[in-house]
This record gives sequence, structure tokens and C-alpha cells, in this order.
Amino acid sequence: MLRIGMLTSGGDCQALNAAMRGVVKGICSKRDDVEIYGFQEGYKGLIYSNFKMLTSRDFSGILTIGGTILGTSRQPFKLMRVPDENGLDKVEAMKHTYHKLNLDCLVVLGGNGTHKTANMLREEGLNVITLPKTIDNDLWGTDMTFGFQSAVDIATDTIDRIHTTATSHSRVFIIEVMGHKVGWVTLHAGIAGGADIILLPEIPYDIDVVVEAINKRKAAGKKFTIIAVAEGAISREDAKLSKKELKEKKAKQKYPSVAYEISERIQKKTDQEVRITVPGHTQRGGSPCAYDRVLATRLGAAAAEAILDGDFGCMVAVKNRDIVRVPLSEVAGKLKYVDPESDIVREAKMTGISFGDK
Amino acid sequence: MLRIGMLTSGGDCQALNAAMRGVVKGICSKRDDVEIYGFQEGYKGLIYSNFKMLTSRDFSGILTIGGTILGTSRQPFKLMRVPDENGLDKVEAMKHTYHKLNLDCLVVLGGNGTHKTANMLREEGLNVITLPKTIDNDLWGTDMTFGFQSAVDIATDTIDRIHTTATSHSRVFIIEVMGHKVGWVTLHAGIAGGADIILLPEIPYDIDVVVEAINKRKAAGKKFTIIAVAEGAISREDAKLSKKELKEKKAKQKYPSVAYEISERIQKKTDQEVRITVPGHTQRGGSPCAYDRVLATRLGAAAAEAILDGDFGCMVAVKNRDIVRVPLSEVAGKLKYVDPESDIVREAKMTGISFGDK
Amino acid sequence: MLRIGMLTSGGDCQALNAAMRGVVKGICSKRDDVEIYGFQEGYKGLIYSNFKMLTSRDFSGILTIGGTILGTSRQPFKLMRVPDENGLDKVEAMKHTYHKLNLDCLVVLGGNGTHKTANMLREEGLNVITLPKTIDNDLWGTDMTFGFQSAVDIATDTIDRIHTTATSHSRVFIIEVMGHKVGWVTLHAGIAGGADIILLPEIPYDIDVVVEAINKRKAAGKKFTIIAVAEGAISREDAKLSKKELKEKKAKQKYPSVAYEISERIQKKTDQEVRITVPGHTQRGGSPCAYDRVLATRLGAAAAEAILDGDFGCMVAVKNRDIVRVPLSEVAGKLKYVDPESDIVREAKMTGISFGDK
Amino acid sequence: MLRIGMLTSGGDCQALNAAMRGVVKGICSKRDDVEIYGFQEGYKGLIYSNFKMLTSRDFSGILTIGGTILGTSRQPFKLMRVPDENGLDKVEAMKHTYHKLNLDCLVVLGGNGTHKTANMLREEGLNVITLPKTIDNDLWGTDMTFGFQSAVDIATDTIDRIHTTATSHSRVFIIEVMGHKVGWVTLHAGIAGGADIILLPEIPYDIDVVVEAINKRKAAGKKFTIIAVAEGAISREDAKLSKKELKEKKAKQKYPSVAYEISERIQKKTDQEVRITVPGHTQRGGSPCAYDRVLATRLGAAAAEAILDGDFGCMVAVKNRDIVRVPLSEVAGKLKYVDPESDIVREAKMTGISFGDK
Repeated sequence: MLRIGMLTSGGDCQALNAAMRGVVKGICSKRDDVEIYGFQEGYKGLIYSNFKMLTSRDFSGILTIGGTILGTSRQPFKLMRVPDENGLDKVEAMKHTYHKLNLDCLVVLGGNGTHKTANMLREEGLNVITLPKTIDNDLWGTDMTFGFQSAVDIATDTIDRIHTTATSHSRVFIIEVMGHKVGWVTLHAGIAGGADIILLPEIPYDIDVVVEAINKRKAAGKKFTIIAVAEGAISREDAKLSKKELKEKKAKQKYPSVAYEISERIQKKTDQEVRITVPGHTQRGGSPCAYDRVLATRLGAAAAEAILDGDFGCMVAVKNRDIVRVPLSEVAGKLKYVDPESDIVREAKMTGISFGDK
Repeated sequence: MLRIGMLTSGGDCQALNAAMRGVVKGICSKRDDVEIYGFQEGYKGLIYSNFKMLTSRDFSGILTIGGTILGTSRQPFKLMRVPDENGLDKVEAMKHTYHKLNLDCLVVLGGNGTHKTANMLREEGLNVITLPKTIDNDLWGTDMTFGFQSAVDIATDTIDRIHTTATSHSRVFIIEVMGHKVGWVTLHAGIAGGADIILLPEIPYDIDVVVEAINKRKAAGKKFTIIAVAEGAISREDAKLSKKELKEKKAKQKYPSVAYEISERIQKKTDQEVRITVPGHTQRGGSPCAYDRVLATRLGAAAAEAILDGDFGCMVAVKNRDIVRVPLSEVAGKLKYVDPESDIVREAKMTGISFGDK
Repeated sequence: MLRIGMLTSGGDCQALNAAMRGVVKGICSKRDDVEIYGFQEGYKGLIYSNFKMLTSRDFSGILTIGGTILGTSRQPFKLMRVPDENGLDKVEAMKHTYHKLNLDCLVVLGGNGTHKTANMLREEGLNVITLPKTIDNDLWGTDMTFGFQSAVDIATDTIDRIHTTATSHSRVFIIEVMGHKVGWVTLHAGIAGGADIILLPEIPYDIDVVVEAINKRKAAGKKFTIIAVAEGAISREDAKLSKKELKEKKAKQKYPSVAYEISERIQKKTDQEVRITVPGHTQRGGSPCAYDRVLATRLGAAAAEAILDGDFGCMVAVKNRDIVRVPLSEVAGKLKYVDPESDIVREAKMTGISFGDK
Repeated sequence: MLRIGMLTSGGDCQALNAAMRGVVKGICSKRDDVEIYGFQEGYKGLIYSNFKMLTSRDFSGILTIGGTILGTSRQPFKLMRVPDENGLDKVEAMKHTYHKLNLDCLVVLGGNGTHKTANMLREEGLNVITLPKTIDNDLWGTDMTFGFQSAVDIATDTIDRIHTTATSHSRVFIIEVMGHKVGWVTLHAGIAGGADIILLPEIPYDIDVVVEAINKRKAAGKKFTIIAVAEGAISREDAKLSKKELKEKKAKQKYPSVAYEISERIQKKTDQEVRITVPGHTQRGGSPCAYDRVLATRLGAAAAEAILDGDFGCMVAVKNRDIVRVPLSEVAGKLKYVDPESDIVREAKMTGISFGDK
């Protein structure tokens, strides 16, 4: 008998169900004696032994469905070693659940924080295999995460819609795109949507350069300017502050989000009306795009192969055009940033996009 | 020779181009001797005689294109009688442009404010024909405005996407929908998207009824609650305030928009996390939906017939399933509200939707 | 105890689930003592007493899902009185199932054929309430059926896509649109998609008029011509044939469908390349559009009201902008055609569309 | 002065405009003295010196527009050396146009056939740079072509829609997907759409294996089977025929396309109803997806860099995640097939998909 535990953790994204379906269908194509334990709402389900027994049938027909049939929750890594309100040691509780159920393997679908905990569980002796899930595409060790392309599609669609209304009025439009501390979604959606200015966490912006780009467009007779801003975008002066100083400054300013701050700064320095659009959680929702469905299905099936091989302690990842296994120890705790000197940024600049960095 | 002036005024919306194409193709199907004067950016173009000569060709291929090829701007009715910064009398200027160009008719595409000015121009002796353009669907005298169904589609798509992420986490989600002072878009998108609670300007909400509906869902084992809120939604207590009192209260509260206010009130009274999504101007953007393209094309062609008939001073409108002409004098200055006692609201309530009004 | 039978019959379409959800939620909002019997695959389930007991929960979350959770099948009306292969009298069998289960009412969702059988069951003494479901919009007695607008959206999207490829090459494109014997979907999608020629069953076409329209466009420098053809479109000469003669002629010609016939005729008379696109069953598939969701929800809730009122023997329908009850006896056996003299056809012609009728 | 000729050749696809915009914006970001000669309708424009002078402005706002602003046509490679009806030597004519206009470089966007001619022009001494355009993704020398992902999206959407109607009825559905002689689009759309059976040119199918897969699903209680068939799919027995024998056989059979042949064979061997959907040219149409817009923009900008470097005779291509330059001599005349032994095929099989090859 093969006993597989499975959980989805962190912010949800598209293709979680597709990936789990790939894992389960993959295993069941080779083995008949399989038990699937679906832990509810991420690591919480593992801690409190809250699970459902699932069969291959439960994963049929979910390829195209957004969200996760297991539910998810955020369980910060740094609190994992802190006992819960009843004094329960969470790490020990997770190990206890794992051993009590006699699991052969735990499949974890998640992003950055999730991988830190997964690696810790590996260090604690559990057989862990992970899948790179996040719209942010910020996971070290994989070229691509599932959820990313779907989020890019939605953010691009937002920019497309704003384009038509922008051409009607003479305005500056700011679209704030998700991505946590990195700029991947914004960079791709910005290029795809034909944004005039793209502001990323990795390339601190100079507000005067931004304003200059706006004015230059106006002078050239262009009626509008579209700015794609990553939620983690940062100005050159803020980038020089310590983490603590920055936190205090932001707390004082009370902007609902970064787009509001940039809007105010632009309006102070130009005579242009500015409008803000924040697609927000829609970027995590809906049916995954075809690209993500293929990617998640492939990663899921490849994870099944790793399980059948007994090859644990790894993230199943994308390297160039191949699916590979990357040791969890190499992945945990590292972020994959946009390189300001990369080809894609240089090419984007050649098409006239300003990154606010002169 | 038939000389037609045309302008689009107010906030833009989908199918403006489709409607203008209908007008021009309609006229040119019957007459060869036509001159089209396209005034730029709404009434501003008429005031300052800023126009382009257009031909039938210019309206070819724009059926599916969002925005307006003429550009638009907001020119508040109440400022029309106030001279501009150079002392120019705007009403006289518009009449002057009209007569100078020897126009036979002015075709105006716009919403509420636009119609007040259009009616004034009619009273001043100009031949005016209008088309009911607004995503808000709040124009008195027509069952339907173009732009409305496209906005409903986009707001519904937003709710659909939020649904998948809502099922993953256990949260309350608020989607703030456009609609100015009325609730049409929110009502339709709320029903179409399967919202659990719908809050409209026409049905002031009681926060305790809203909270009760949330708690009832939670007690029934439903993991999430979706609330569709019209941007003009108002609480029962605020509905009792005078316009001035309300304005002062809002100014003090400093919420970016109504969703933020309702979110805070819910979070104070429940233990639920709340997330806000504001699709904003995307609701005005992109290619019009099929429904709006057909409606706008029909209205445009019917306006052409009215022009050819020499039947001016009317809005070309929808009454039941027919296209009719409604005197501008009956339309101007009136809003079409959602009737809280209407069939659609009662039917929505039968499917379990709360309007926060117990 | 209120015992409701329900079935979906005929070709499937969007918003069947939405409508059933409306019925069940509507009834359950007023009564606690309800039993729902879901007959499987249309009348077949009623004949052979094949059903599932369903609760309000089963109808939760299906608003946006295409297809029908009950399954459907085509059971031709004219075979209803013919015993099945085991000698079973189907009508008696249906009555038997109804009475055996002690049903208070049978809710039937279907199109034309379905309504004939529904009316017969009414005449046989059953309490029947129907809902107008069909992409064809050909049901007599209602302005609108659900499924129609979704099908229009999909057919329009097809024409939109063909437009871009048509502008690249110099060709004639024929898009064959569903609609059975009537032209509603083709008419609306053709206008919405900017088709140059629209061919409907209700307006027999003259191939020479079609060819002339194509040549005229070419002479005017337009590179392509888009033709939207209803699957039931018919030429002027074929319209003069008897049903039997036509059947024989078609059998000899062996065209896969009408678009192929028209394509061949055009290619014989012009030097233009012709390409055919047949979106086919996609026009019945996918999530219903917002319009259909609202319509189906309203019709469902209104059907619930009729049931609670004990008002049977009617179709719940749309009249102008109201939801009304129409006696089944008035509906059964009649088709609602596009009127060649109607406003919408005249307006379409004003925008330059040829209907192939000179 | 830098004089650039540009043309798009072969079947059109999405993101042609995006790629050309990338080239032109890229060059104009570095040089002011640029002249762009846009040849009309592919090589035909080069042969007959039919071109338009274009500026950077002409490429503004076309990022999201399907089709090609230059038009395209198919000019078979094997006819290039055959004089035209007036005895004109086409190759000499192209060289003449190139030299007469004093071009520094010719940018060619096209697929397989296009590249053969491009390579010949290089051999004839012209400076040629190409971009890999085709929905088929069959170009040797690049991991990815633009147009491919957009086509996959559309084919997947078709399968999604068919899925809902398939669940309503009990049927086999065949969706025929484009791809010329290779199976890339079908493979990806089949996986993304959750097809049960995928038939590719690269994996000749055994009809009995296909029928067995259908029957097995039926026996397991699944109501329907979805088959994604590449337009170039071939049976095991046909794969053994010579090219000539196959051509004769196909000519006799007179199936409109491969889906009809497979449908008939299935219906002969099972009792299942079969329905066919052929999305056809829609797969080439509409706005490019975000992925293709980014890819085409990057390739375009990279081509601009190659031009500015004076590095000619190459295709700008994707290798792993990098943009690279591949000698035309290595590309021309070779096809990139799906490898039946590749990871993606094996992973697809693990999720239960049959390729009809047992």
C-alpha cells in the first residue's frame, strides 16, 4: 500500500487542482494500492490531523477548476516553532500526523514560505515532494511556477481594457499588479499590455524619470500614459532606507497601496489626471490558462514519477524546457528576482518602455 | 448637402464607436451628399470648434473597438452657463460653431449630464438627436443604454474569479461595482456572479443585517461570503443625513471608496477576514459585448432614420423590444433607479440573496 | 410535503443549471418540506423512472456551470405515442412515474419539441410548468430564451477571430451558425460581428445577389467578405421545392452542411478563395454569459412562484421586460421566426449588410 | 540611412504585428535615420515591388491586433524558380527590388516554406533576418514560435466548451485541431483541455486501440469521450502507404477532413453517437495571448539588435529561455516534430490519455 498525504499552502492560485490531479492520476496509472490523504487548509490540516480520504475519482473533472479542493491557509514559517494557543508544538504535531497515518510521502504545493516549512519537515525526516505554485514566479530553483502565466493573462487583460478608456480621455493610468516582492507578473503583463512605464521592486524608480517619461509622451502628442506598477515597487530614496525606517515611513503615509503613493507624486509634478486600477485577487482566480494547465499536469505527473522512484526531498521544477528534480535544501529561503540587466528588460527598453531608472 | 455634427461626451463606455458607425452607415445608405463633422473630446470640441471632417471610411472597422474615435470629456452642465477662463460664453460658442458650419443636425452620445446640455441646445434652437450611452443604465426614458451589458459582463467576470479564490480561503470578499448613483450594474452582476449579498444605493443597508447574513452562511458551513457593492451604496443611517451632512461625514472618514468603509464595519462586528476588489475603469474598457454591439448598431441606424425624417429633439431609445424616439424634454434631468419592489429584486431575494434590508 | 419532478430535455444549452437552481432556491426560500426528483436524461428518466433525489445543496455552486446536472436526451414528440422496443407505452409510463411518486408538479426545461410533449402531459392531467431553453430563440410565446445570448456571444467571437485572419488574406469567409430552422443567432451574431452578408432561413437567398455583394466589396477595394450563414439557410429556388423534393435534392448533393453548398456556388461564380468555419457544438457549451444567468435565475424563481401559487400548465416566459406565464396550449407546436420586415432587419440593411435578397 | 524591407508570408497568425512593432521600435530606439519598406502580401510584394513606406507611428497601437498590417500570401518555394504567367523570373525580381531600393536588410516573418525562400535569398546575396511565425510550432531551430500559444488557447477553449455539452449527452466528441504535419497544438490543447484521446501525426493510431479506450471509459461509467485529433493525424495502416498511394486513397474517400474519417470508423465499431467540431481558421485569429505578445516583442527587439549588429543570415529564435540567432542554413527545410518518446508524451499518458498507440 502506498500512502500519500497532500496539501496546498499559502495564497491560492490557478492550476492547483490541475497539479494535484496530475499527481494522483500519475500514481494511479502505475499502482492500484494507493491511499490519498487530503489535508484541509494547508499545514493546518497536517498539524490538527484534519484530512479527507480521497480517491482518483475526486480528482476527475477538476483540471479546469480554479482554487483548490483542499482549501489553503497561510501558516508563516517563523511561527511554526512557536506553540499554538493550547501549547501544541506544531512541528511535532505534523510529524505525529504523518507517522500516525503511516504515510509514505507528503506532497506539498506552495510558494516561498511553504517551501521553508517543507524543507524543515524534510530535515525532520519526512519524505517530502513539493510543487512550485505561485502567481509571483519568485521561487528559486525553477524557471517557471504554475499560476504565473494565468496571472499575467489577467493583468494583461486589465491593461488592455484600460487602454481603450485611456484613449478616450487624456489621462495617466496606473495599474497595480500583484507579485509580492518581485516584478515578474508586472514585467510580463506590462510588456504584453503595451505599458509605457513599468515599475518593479528590482529597479527602484526615480519619480522625476517617471514624470519625464509622461511629459515626453504628452509632448509627442500621445494622449495617455499607462503605468504598470508592481505591488512591491519602490522609489530610489525608499530603497536606501533600512527595513525599519521604511516600515515607519509607510505607516505614516497610510496609502492603501503603492499605486496611490505614486499617483499622488505624479499629480504633484504634472497637470495630468491620474486613475488607479487594482485588479487584486482576481489575478489569483478563475480557470487556469492552457499554459498553466499543461505545466501543472506535467509537474504533477513528474512528481508521481518521483514518488514511484522513491526519490524524495525535492521540488519538481522546470529547467529550460525540461522537468527536473531540485533538492529542497537548495530551494528553501531563496527568492528569484528579475535581473535588471537581463535580456528581457533590455529588449523591453528597446521598445520604448521606461523603467523609471533613467 | 446634409451636414451632421457628432460628439461623444461624459465618461466613455463600450460601443460608442459601434453606435456612431451605425449612424453614419445608416445615413450614407440613403444619401450620398453627407458631411460629417466629428467634434473632439465632447462639448469642448463644439465650444472651441475643434473638429475633424470624417467620411464613411473612418467608421469602417470600428464596430468592435472600445473607446471613442472622437475622444470625450466631462463638461458639467452647471458650468455650461459659466463663462470660461477667457470670458467665453460656452453656450453661445456652441451655437456659433453649429451655425457657422451650417449644420443640419447635432448627434450627441452621452449619459445623464450630457442630456441636460443636449436639451438646452435643443431649447436654443439646434437640431439635436441623442443616443443613450452609459454603463450605469440610469438614463430615464430608455429601458437600456449601451455599455451597460458590457460592464455587467466585466463585473460578473470579476466576481467569478473571486469565487474561486474565495472557496480556497475562508473569507468575506467585497467587490465594488461601478454605477454612479444607481445600482443597475451591481444588481445584474451580483445575480449573474452568484453574490450572496448585494448592496445598492436604492436599498440602504443595515450593517447588522449584512453581518447576520454573513454569520448565517458561516453557521451553515459555507466557507465564504461574496458581497457585490455598488459604488453608490449607502447605509440606512447615512440615508437619513442631508446631502451636506453626508458630505462632511465622508470627508472626515477618508475611505478611498465605499467598499473600504463596509469592510471596516464588517471586520469590527465579525471575526472574518475581508478582502476588497475594485475593478474600476476596466468596467468601461475593451471590446463591447455582442449585446451592446447589436443594440448600439440598431440605435445608430434608427438615429439615422430620425435624421433623414427630420425628426429632431429626441433621444433614440429602447422601449420594451422596440427602438423608439423619446422627446429630450422628457429625458433631461431625470434618473432611472432600481425599484426596490420590482420583480427582479424579489426574484433575487428568492434565490437567497440578501440586500441588507431585512 | 411538496414533491417536484424536474427534467431537462432536447439539445443542451447554457444556463440550464442556473435555471434549475433558481427554481429550487426559489421554492426552498418559502417552503421547508420539499422533495426534488431529478429525472435523468430528459423524458427518458420520466418514462423509465430513472431519477435522483436532490436537495437544495445539489443546486449550490452550479450557477456558472454549463451543461445540465440532470443530463438530457432528445425524445422526438412524434415517437412518444409509439411503444418502445419492449412494447411499453411511453406516455402511460410517464404518467405512471408521476403518480407513483405522488408528484405535485413536473418542471420541464426544453425547447420546441419538448414543449409539445409537455403540453400533451398537461392534457393528460399532469401539473406541468416549463422553462424556455434553447440557443435557437425559436420558442413561440417568449421574447427570449436562455442559452440564446450565450450562443450569440460564441458565434460573434468566432466571427471576430475570422475577421483578423480575413484581413490578412484576400478571401471570402463563411461562418455557419446554429439555430435550427430559424435565423435568430445568425442575425444577432452577424450584426455583432460585422458580417457583410447574412443568410437566414426566413429570407431565401439569391446566389447572384450574394455574388454581386461580394464583387461590389472587391470593386470598392475591400479585401475580404464575411458571410454569416444560418445552418437552416435556404436558396430562393430550394424554397420553392416541396419538403420531399428538397430532401431528395439534399441527399444527392451530399454537402456536409449548408456552408459547403454556398461555398461551392460562390467559387463557381467568382475567382475568390472561400474558407468555411463551423463552430458547431461550441455554441452550446461553456459557462453561460451574464445575461443568460440573470434571465435563467429570474425565470427559475418565477417558476417557483407559479408552483407555490399552484398555477400550472404554463411556460414561464419573457414578455417585453416582464416575466409572465403563458398557457402551454398557446405555445406548443409553434415556431417564432425572424420577420424579414422587422425593424432589426431593416436597421441591419441600413448599415450595409446584404441578406442576399436583392 | 538604414533601409529595412519587411514582409509577412504564409498563413497568418497572432502576434505578427507585435513582432513587427518590436523590430521597428527596437531599431528606432537606436537610430533616427531609418526607412521602413513594408512589402504587401508576402513575397508577392517583393517580387512586384509593391510596398508602402512606413514610419514608427504605423507600428504604434498594433501590439494587440491580430492579423498583419502588411497582408500575407502563400508563395510556394517550389514555384519560386518557375517564371510567372508573364515570364518573370521571381527570384531575380526579388533581388532587383531589393537592390533597386538599396535595402540594407530584409526582415521576413514566416513559417516553414517561408524560411526556404528566405534562405535562398540569403544564398543569392541578400541580407536576410527571419522571425519564427507559425501556430504549428514546427520550425526547426527554435523551441517556440509565436502564434503557437494563442492557437493552443483557442483550441483549448473549444475543448472546454465541448466538455460541458458532452457531459449533458452521452457521446463521443472529436475536435480537429490545426497544426499542418505536426501535432504540437493538438498535444498541448489536448492536455490542457483534458482530452481522453489525442491523435497526432507523429504517433500513427490504431483504430482498435481508440475504440478500446472509448469502450473502457464507457464501462467505467464515464458518459462521454473527448478526442483531440490533429489535422495531420494518420492511422497505422495509412502510415505504411507511399505518399502517392495515400494521396489516391484520400482522394477516393472524399472526407472533408480527418475528423470525419475517424468519426465514421468509430461509429462503425461502437454504438456511440459521434459529433465533430472543427474550429478551423479561428485558431489563427483574434488578439494574441499575453505569452505570444511578450515572445513576439522580445524576438522583434532581438532582431533589431541583430540588424544593428549587421549580423544577417539568421533566424532570431528561442533556445531554452534565451533569445538566440540561428543560421538560416540550419533551419531551412527541416521540420520540428513531437517526439513520441518525449517526457511530455509520457507524462500525458500517465494522466490517462490514450494516443491510440497502445
